[in-house]
Amino acid sequence: MTKELGITVKKSSDFSDWYTQCVLKSGIVDYSPSKGFIILRPYGYAIWEIIKDILDNELKNTGHKNGFLPVLIPESLLTKEKDHFDGFMPEVFWVTRSGNSELGEKLAVRPTSETLAYSLFSKWISSYRDLPLKLNFWNSALRAEIKSTKPLIRNSEFLWQEGHTAHTDEIEADEEVKLILGLYKKLIEDYLAIPTISGLKSDKEKFVGAKYTTCLESLMADGKVLQMATSHHLGQNFSKPFEIKFLDKDTNEHFAWQTSWGISWRIIGALIMVHGDDKGLILPPKISPTQVIIVPIYKDESKEIVKQKACDLENKLRAHNIRAFTDDRDEFTSGWKFNEWEMKGVPLRANIGLRDMKENQVELIRRDTKERFYVKEGELVNKVLIILEKIQSNMFDSAKNQLQSNTRTAASLAELLSILDATGGFVASSWCGKRICEDLVKEKTTADIRIVPFDAKEKVSACIACGNQDTIQVYFGRAY
Amino acid sequence: MTKELGITVKKSSDFSDWYTQCVLKSGIVDYSPSKGFIILRPYGYAIWEIIKDILDNELKNTGHKNGFLPVLIPESLLTKEKDHFDGFMPEVFWVTRSGNSELGEKLAVRPTSETLAYSLFSKWISSYRDLPLKLNFWNSALRAEIKSTKPLIRNSEFLWQEGHTAHTDEIEADEEVKLILGLYKKLIEDYLAIPTISGLKSDKEKFVGAKYTTCLESLMADGKVLQMATSHHLGQNFSKPFEIKFLDKDTNEHFAWQTSWGISWRIIGALIMVHGDDKGLILPPKISPTQVIIVPIYKDESKEIVKQKACDLENKLRAHNIRAFTDDRDEFTSGWKFNEWEMKGVPLRANIGLRDMKENQVELIRRDTKERFYVKEGELVNKVLIILEKIQSNMFDSAKNQLQSNTRTAASLAELLSILDATGGFVASSWCGKRICEDLVKEKTTADIRIVPFDAKEKVSACIACGNQDTIQVYFGRAY
Repeated sequence: MTKELGITVKKSSDFSDWYTQCVLKSGIVDYSPSKGFIILRPYGYAIWEIIKDILDNELKNTGHKNGFLPVLIPESLLTKEKDHFDGFMPEVFWVTRSGNSELGEKLAVRPTSETLAYSLFSKWISSYRDLPLKLNFWNSALRAEIKSTKPLIRNSEFLWQEGHTAHTDEIEADEEVKLILGLYKKLIEDYLAIPTISGLKSDKEKFVGAKYTTCLESLMADGKVLQMATSHHLGQNFSKPFEIKFLDKDTNEHFAWQTSWGISWRIIGALIMVHGDDKGLILPPKISPTQVIIVPIYKDESKEIVKQKACDLENKLRAHNIRAFTDDRDEFTSGWKFNEWEMKGVPLRANIGLRDMKENQVELIRRDTKERFYVKEGELVNKVLIILEKIQSNMFDSAKNQLQSNTRTAASLAELLSILDATGGFVASSWCGKRICEDLVKEKTTADIRIVPFDAKEKVSACIACGNQDTIQVYFGRAY
Repeated sequence: MTKELGITVKKSSDFSDWYTQCVLKSGIVDYSPSKGFIILRPYGYAIWEIIKDILDNELKNTGHKNGFLPVLIPESLLTKEKDHFDGFMPEVFWVTRSGNSELGEKLAVRPTSETLAYSLFSKWISSYRDLPLKLNFWNSALRAEIKSTKPLIRNSEFLWQEGHTAHTDEIEADEEVKLILGLYKKLIEDYLAIPTISGLKSDKEKFVGAKYTTCLESLMADGKVLQMATSHHLGQNFSKPFEIKFLDKDTNEHFAWQTSWGISWRIIGALIMVHGDDKGLILPPKISPTQVIIVPIYKDESKEIVKQKACDLENKLRAHNIRAFTDDRDEFTSGWKFNEWEMKGVPLRANIGLRDMKENQVELIRRDTKERFYVKEGELVNKVLIILEKIQSNMFDSAKNQLQSNTRTAASLAELLSILDATGGFVASSWCGKRICEDLVKEKTTADIRIVPFDAKEKVSACIACGNQDTIQVYFGRAY
């Protein structure tokens, strides 16, 4: 690989440029001709497919069903829940024409589907027998992002799933919100190897139209924090305007209780920001499209025999459901291949050459620690399985260390500011609960309340903004 | 199930109303609040997911990779290939605003992605080493359909996949076009149990911008015919305006040769039209989300024991990868359940009651032939596997009979018209190849040339429009 094909900037020296080079050069994304829009290239899409399969399976196992909703939503539906509409209005793309004709009513390009879904829920739900209704949609959402776009993190269109449910009572909806947050946490921690902090959003930061929003937040390597996933309790805020009513066993009519929740491709961006290094991506084995890349090392005279051996090893690994591939392209040198797969973040590389074959061995190179070792061919499958597990847990552990050592406490606004400027990360501080204090902290530090822990400590110290003693401890951070 | 929940019209008496009732009442689709748009409900989406998995697997096995393209395409790209733009222009939805601002350049809501994909291909392709490039996109396309909409068959937005490839030479592109048509044929015939006729489109009917279009056509139960899938050879028609060039081994620069191809959810519509009966859908086992529905038949005192047995049978079948489900809802009677699953087209029903348990047997009822038989519990799995295979082949055979007995020959325009009026179907007639004759037939009979067989017979008789003797035999039909 030539120098300019690799990552030319250090992660620690220019994080933003490093990130952009990583996502573009590894073949994850490319820019679309329209500003703010991106393409997901095959390597990026393959990661998304793996993530999707894992979550889809979990959702189906917990009784959710998939469906399809149109991408165009009539304006009149979007305006039905006022807070919701006001929140999304500035970033909605509007279809006003078809062919050469003006449309009678403008159509919004889906910023999210609550309004459309719930106009249908009101048709589908009439009895307690129709509940719970638990639907999910794998699609894309569009929100015009003109300024500060960042591939996968902030774009005008993003892939995601959006779940929409309706329940007979408030507590069942509470449980659904919690169940989903748990599934997201499992996906992000156990598969993407990214530790999270979970809790509630403040009223200011919650989803427009929600009763409350629960959320997972993670730390990126530059000290900024990122919202990873949200799960909302909608109360009856939508069921009333949309008239989602059911006849209960007691023959009384009630409005349904609802939830909505989503996770997007931004977690792929997080994956890169958290785990990558100066050479490029490092992917956790569980979500890496290629878990083991086999590079046959040969000269002209040994070509056939070494390639055949590489192919045999690949088959052996694949028979044990290990995603192994052989890079047997003649038009690139071994060194070029090493650099390319390193940049793409494949967790384990296996080199095989004529000398190894004579010794009945394979050379393995870990992407995360760069360790190299030789294993006997007969032990290859077992060793690979063990190493992949080690890589997975090592990646989570080191990200967890990062998170813990960058989670600090500040007892004053000045202290909060100095921590944020010095290291970033999450900062636990006491807050009285008032919006005016939240706004003041934002104004002075540009940090938001990222999360109100479910078990927030009370009255640890005075509110860092107003000095009131009646406080809870929340996490502040500067966010993407 | 109450009468109005079932299908209230015969397939033979009002085919159109019968079809609409089938798709709505079985839970396949619903209407969206915007005219022309539909929802895919969980039952319909589950069928789509099965179809998608089958085809996706075939595409991956033949070296295709998935990606994601934005749904909004700048007007300037769409206009680059003039025929293509002129063809789609009347039905394009245009985004002209975001929030409260007018956009500088209008954005088209994807009618198809050739132009966007190929603007990227020109960036990604520079050497023969980058070829072939074989990409696929599972997404939706939007084309404004105001008149004569029909759920799944003609709507303003539809789910599909669109494939886009680039090759070093014309012949490789020819082979790709043929490979894909073969995959589509396998999907439709072997899985959906719908026989097809394959061949070329006439110049008038080919894809706008294509060099030639290959296609599969099938016969619906009302005598109309339906285009099931298309695979296009684009020649260099797009590579030239989009400057998709590569340096070949000979160090000369060439324009790439391209293909594009797609299949949409309309094949689910075809499935219903071809196989359904007066009771509702009949789904071929290979694509039915539920292959065996188990209905426990019990009274209050036998409830627990019969339900437990049903559950055991379900587990036994599922252990052999049979998609079996138990309908153990207490709030519906067995009769109601029979009718519901019959309407939903589940290929095989298993009834189990206390009496059966004493006899160690299960009652099986085939959806296609209505045959009933008892099988011993120990033989259940094997019998079910055999019967599901029989249902699959019986459904294909009977559709094949329909197709064959509704494929006729006409030697004159008058004969063609009388066959179309009497029975519909495919009619083989001789045509001289001129557009004016094709238009005349359309004007006199409302039929199109549906397909020019790959091995079209030559000079069978005179052109049915102009009498010229230099002809090929093509299939006419009235199409959806």
